[in-house]
Amino acid sequence: MNNKSRRKRSAPAEKKPRNLQLKFIPLGGVGEIGKNMYVLEYGGDIIVIDSGLMFPDQELPGIDFIVPDISYLEANREKVLGIVLTHGHEDHTGGLPFVLQRLDVPIYGTRLTLGLVGNKLEEMPQLHPRMNEVKAGDVIEIGPFKIRFIAVSHSIPDGVALSIETPLGRVVHTGDFKLDSTPIDGRVTDYGAFAEEGDKGVLLLLSDSTNAERKGFTPSERLIGGTLDYLYRNYRNKRLIISSFASNVHRIQQVIDGAARFNRKIAFLGRSMIRNVELAKSLGYLRLDEKMTVPVENIGKYPENQLVVMTTGSQGEPFSGLVMMSRSEHKQITLGERDAVFLLATAIPGNEKLVYKTINRLFSVGCEVVYESDKLTHVSGHASSEELKIMLNLTRPQYFAPVHGEYRHLAHHSRLAQDVGIPGKNIFIMTNGEVLTFQKAGRPHTRDRVHSGAVVIDGNAVGELKSRVMKERRDLADDGIIVVSLAITRDGALLAPASVGSRGFFAQDERHDVLDEIRAASEKALNEFTKKHKTGKLDAEALGRAVKIRVGEVVRRRNASYPVIMPLISVAGDERDSKNWLEKFF
Amino acid sequence: MNNKSRRKRSAPAEKKPRNLQLKFIPLGGVGEIGKNMYVLEYGGDIIVIDSGLMFPDQELPGIDFIVPDISYLEANREKVLGIVLTHGHEDHTGGLPFVLQRLDVPIYGTRLTLGLVGNKLEEMPQLHPRMNEVKAGDVIEIGPFKIRFIAVSHSIPDGVALSIETPLGRVVHTGDFKLDSTPIDGRVTDYGAFAEEGDKGVLLLLSDSTNAERKGFTPSERLIGGTLDYLYRNYRNKRLIISSFASNVHRIQQVIDGAARFNRKIAFLGRSMIRNVELAKSLGYLRLDEKMTVPVENIGKYPENQLVVMTTGSQGEPFSGLVMMSRSEHKQITLGERDAVFLLATAIPGNEKLVYKTINRLFSVGCEVVYESDKLTHVSGHASSEELKIMLNLTRPQYFAPVHGEYRHLAHHSRLAQDVGIPGKNIFIMTNGEVLTFQKAGRPHTRDRVHSGAVVIDGNAVGELKSRVMKERRDLADDGIIVVSLAITRDGALLAPASVGSRGFFAQDERHDVLDEIRAASEKALNEFTKKHKTGKLDAEALGRAVKIRVGEVVRRRNASYPVIMPLISVAGDERDSKNWLEKFF
Repeated sequence: MNNKSRRKRSAPAEKKPRNLQLKFIPLGGVGEIGKNMYVLEYGGDIIVIDSGLMFPDQELPGIDFIVPDISYLEANREKVLGIVLTHGHEDHTGGLPFVLQRLDVPIYGTRLTLGLVGNKLEEMPQLHPRMNEVKAGDVIEIGPFKIRFIAVSHSIPDGVALSIETPLGRVVHTGDFKLDSTPIDGRVTDYGAFAEEGDKGVLLLLSDSTNAERKGFTPSERLIGGTLDYLYRNYRNKRLIISSFASNVHRIQQVIDGAARFNRKIAFLGRSMIRNVELAKSLGYLRLDEKMTVPVENIGKYPENQLVVMTTGSQGEPFSGLVMMSRSEHKQITLGERDAVFLLATAIPGNEKLVYKTINRLFSVGCEVVYESDKLTHVSGHASSEELKIMLNLTRPQYFAPVHGEYRHLAHHSRLAQDVGIPGKNIFIMTNGEVLTFQKAGRPHTRDRVHSGAVVIDGNAVGELKSRVMKERRDLADDGIIVVSLAITRDGALLAPASVGSRGFFAQDERHDVLDEIRAASEKALNEFTKKHKTGKLDAEALGRAVKIRVGEVVRRRNASYPVIMPLISVAGDERDSKNWLEKFF
Repeated sequence: MNNKSRRKRSAPAEKKPRNLQLKFIPLGGVGEIGKNMYVLEYGGDIIVIDSGLMFPDQELPGIDFIVPDISYLEANREKVLGIVLTHGHEDHTGGLPFVLQRLDVPIYGTRLTLGLVGNKLEEMPQLHPRMNEVKAGDVIEIGPFKIRFIAVSHSIPDGVALSIETPLGRVVHTGDFKLDSTPIDGRVTDYGAFAEEGDKGVLLLLSDSTNAERKGFTPSERLIGGTLDYLYRNYRNKRLIISSFASNVHRIQQVIDGAARFNRKIAFLGRSMIRNVELAKSLGYLRLDEKMTVPVENIGKYPENQLVVMTTGSQGEPFSGLVMMSRSEHKQITLGERDAVFLLATAIPGNEKLVYKTINRLFSVGCEVVYESDKLTHVSGHASSEELKIMLNLTRPQYFAPVHGEYRHLAHHSRLAQDVGIPGKNIFIMTNGEVLTFQKAGRPHTRDRVHSGAVVIDGNAVGELKSRVMKERRDLADDGIIVVSLAITRDGALLAPASVGSRGFFAQDERHDVLDEIRAASEKALNEFTKKHKTGKLDAEALGRAVKIRVGEVVRRRNASYPVIMPLISVAGDERDSKNWLEKFF
C-alpha cells in the first residue's frame, strides 16, 4: 500500500537513527476541539501545521483564551522552518499572536487565510510576520518537506489539506473539511488530488474527527440558501435581522444573494462581521454590490421590509450586536413586533445557555425568532461518517491518527477506519505531547513524549492551565474570601484593631453579623498564640495558620461554607515579613 | 365554553370585590425551567401548587440551589391552606425543606411523591410536616378549592394533574405530563377526566410547556425497552454499567426486566439510586426480585457477563458513581475493555460539558460507550406539540397560561393554543410575581404584581439572586483579588509595613513581581493622602479610595486586568472604623 516506505524499509538500516526519524507530535487538537497545532519533524527540521486557540469553559473564569504550550518549539527554535496554515478559523490561527512573539518564523497559507491573520496581527505592530501566500494545487518545499496544497470545502473559503512528502513517506493532513458537492463558491474538495496521493502511497493520514459520531453525510452549505429563500418569502413584511458566524463567508453570500433577490438593502453589524465582509470582498471571496449596502446609522431611511441587518451574536456573546438588541440596549436598532430574527447557526457546546437566553429575550420583546428548533438553519462544516470513510478510502494510508476531536470523536473515527480495513494496530489515538515516531525500518512507536500543555491568556498575563491562580479563582467563586489583617508588634501586641473584610461571602443574615464574630475569633487566636509562644521571635506564618483555623471554625458553624481565608499579618519593624509572605505556605 | 363563570357573570355584581377575586400567581416556573411554584388565591384563601428548586448555572458559582422567594406567602401566612404536589421531581418538591421551615402548612400528594418528600425531609428532624396522601381520581376540598386529581404519565410514576373548582370557575393545571399510550406501569394519562372537566367548563388552563418547541409526539418510555433489548443482546459478553436518572422508576424497571431476561444480577450504585429503588419497591412501584440484586461489594463473586450495575451519574455529576468509575477512582469498580456503559439519559442543558467529559474518560479507559449520539437511549417525559394541542382540545379553556418553560417555550405553546382556536387575547404569557386576576364580571387582568424572585442557598446561608455577594463572586472569578492592608496612626503614619496579598491574580511573571509594585504604590498613596489632608481627623474611607486608584493603575499597566481591589485600613485607637467599614462604600 505504501510503496515508498516499503522500498525504504528493505534498504540496509544505517546507524544514524537521529536523522532517520520522522516524528508527528500534536501539541494541541487531540482530545479536544480547539487550539490545533501539529508538529512534523524530520531530523533537524520542523514544520508546524496550524496554530490555534481555544475558548475557555467555566472551569477557567476570566481567561480570554487558551493556546498550546510551545516550550518544545522554543527549545528547538532553530529547527522550526515555518507554520503552515490550513484555513482561517480561530482554532487554527488564533494562537499566532502568542506564537509569533516567541518564534519568528515564516507563515504559509492561502490568500483569505493570510488576510484574516493579517487583520488579527494588525493589533501587534511590533510583529513583522513573513507571510507566504500559496493556493490549492501549489507544491512548495520547506526543508525536507515537500508540501502539496489540496482544495477542501469547509465553512470558511480557501481551506486546504496538506500532502507532505518526507524522506520516510507521505503524510496527509486533511485540515477541516467536508465533501460538499455543491459548495457556494464551486470549489469542490479535490477528490482527484487525494486519490493521486493515495496512489503514490500515504504513510500517515491525519483526518478531521469533529463529526465522526454523525452518521451519513453532512448536508451541503447550499441547503441554507433554500431555508433563506423560504424565510425571505415568509417574512416579506418584516425587517430581517440575521445572525451567523462572521467567518462563514459562504453563508453571508447566501444572505446577500437573498437580499438582492428580494430587493432588500443590507447593513452589516459587529466589528468582526464588518471586517470580514470587507476583507472577503476585497480579496474576491464575496460578491456584494456596493449599492445594496447601507451603513447601520442610515437604516432609518429605508422601509423596514426593505432591510436586512446581518450581525454577529449567534453564540450569545455578551456584547455582540444581536445580544445588545435583545437587551434593548443597542444604539441604532430597537427590535419589536415588526422584526424577524434568524439565527443561522447552532450553539457551540458550552454556549447553549447564552444562546437560549438571547432567544428568550428576543421572544420577550415581541420578535419572530427562527432558530435551531425549526431546523435547516445550520449545517456543519465538518465531514460526517460516510465522508470520513471516503477520505480514508481515497488516501488508503498505512497508518492513521484521527485528529481534531475529543476522545469520543477520535474513538469513533478509529472505528470508521477499522471498518474500511485499516488494522486497529495501525491506528493511533494520541494525546497532546505524544510523539509518533517513524523509522526507516519497523513499526512506528509512541514511546516518547515532549513537554506539552495549555497556556491561559488573561489580558497581558500568561499562565499555566493548572496553575494555582486558576484553582484560586474557582475557590473564590465557590465561596468567596475572608481577609483578616493584624498589625502587631514583635511581641504580638495589636497596634490597631484587627481588620476584617469579605467578598463573595454571605456575611450577614437576620440574626448574625458573621464578620463581627470573625474579628473576635481572630483577636482571640492572636491572644492564644502569644500566650503559647512567649519566647523568641514571633512566627508570623504560624500565627497566620492559627488565625485561619479559628476563623474557619466560625464560618463553618455559621454558614456551613468554606471560603478562602486569607490572614495578613504585618509586624512592626519587620520589613521582610510583610511582603506577602503567606504565599509561601499555601 | 365556561358555563359556570358565564352563569356567575350574569348575576348582579355585588360590591365586595376583594372576596370575589380569583388570582393565579406564579412564584416560580414561568420564564424558566425549574423551581415551580404556583399560587391560587381566592378571597382570603391560598393554595400552593408545587414547591420546587432549580440548580444554578455558572452565573451563580458556589450556590447549592435556588428556590422561589416566598415573602408573599410569608406575608399572607394565615391564608395559606396547604401545598399540593403534582409529582416527586426536585423542580416540583425540592424547595419544601426551605418552605416548610418558614411556613408550617399541610402537604398533599400521591404516595410516591410523599415518599420521596419524606426521604428528603428525614434530614430535617425539626420539621414535622403534615402529609396527606391522595391518589388519582380523588376529590378533596381545601377551603374554597375543590381539587380533583387526574392521572398523568411522566418520567416518574404517580404524577397527577389538578382540576381545581373555585367559586369563579375551574382551573386545570396539567402538571408535567406526556400522553404515553404504552406507559410501563399501564397508568395512561386519564383523557376521560380531562374531557369531563372540559365539558364542565374550564376557566383557566395551566399547561406544561417544556417541549412546546418539538413537533409531533414524544415517544413512549417503552421505546427504551427495545433499545435495552438490543443492547443486552449485542453486549452479551460484557459487564454492563447503565446510568439513568435515579427518579425514573420506569426506566429502572426496564433495566431490571432486561437483566432478568438475560440472566444477569443487578447491583445498584449511588445514594439516590439506592434510596429511590428501595422506596419505589417498598411502595409497590417497582417489581424487583430480591434474588436478582447483589450488593456492589459482592459483584466480584459473579462473572462479568452476568452483571448489570445500575448507577447515577448520567449528568456527569462530579462525585457520582459513573464519574468516579470514569476517573478510575471508584472503590469497587474498575472499568476496562470488558465493560460496556449505556447512558440512558440526555444531557440537561448546561450539563453538556460535564457529560461529554465523562464520556471521553470512559472511552479513554477502553469501555464501549453507548450514548445520545447513537439515539434511542432517551425519551422525554414531557408532551410535544401534538400532545399539547390534544390537551388544549380536551380541556377547551376560556383562558390559557402556559407554564413550566422558558420564554421561548411559553411563546411556542401560546402559538399552539392559537392554532387550536384560543384567541391570542385570552392567552397570558406571565412572569414570576405577575398576578392574573379574575373577577366575577369582565375580563381577567394582569395589572398587579406581588414580590417575587429567587433565593440562593449556599450551605446555611440564604441570599438574594441579584445580591452583591453573587456579583462579587463573579468578579473574583474573573480576575481575582488584591488586598492591601494599612495599619496607621490617626495622623496617617504607618504602624507596620503595608501588607499585600492576592488570590486568583497572576502576580508574577518572568520580569516583574506585581505585588511589590502594588505595595510601593499603596504606601505612596498613603503619603500623598496624608500630605493633602493634614488637618482634622483622617478619613479612612477616602484613604481607601485613594489606595484603590493607585493600585488599580499598577494592575492595569502590568496585567491589563481588573481584579477586585480591597483596601483594609486599620486606625490605631479607632475601634469603630476598623470593623469592615469599607463594606459601606462599595
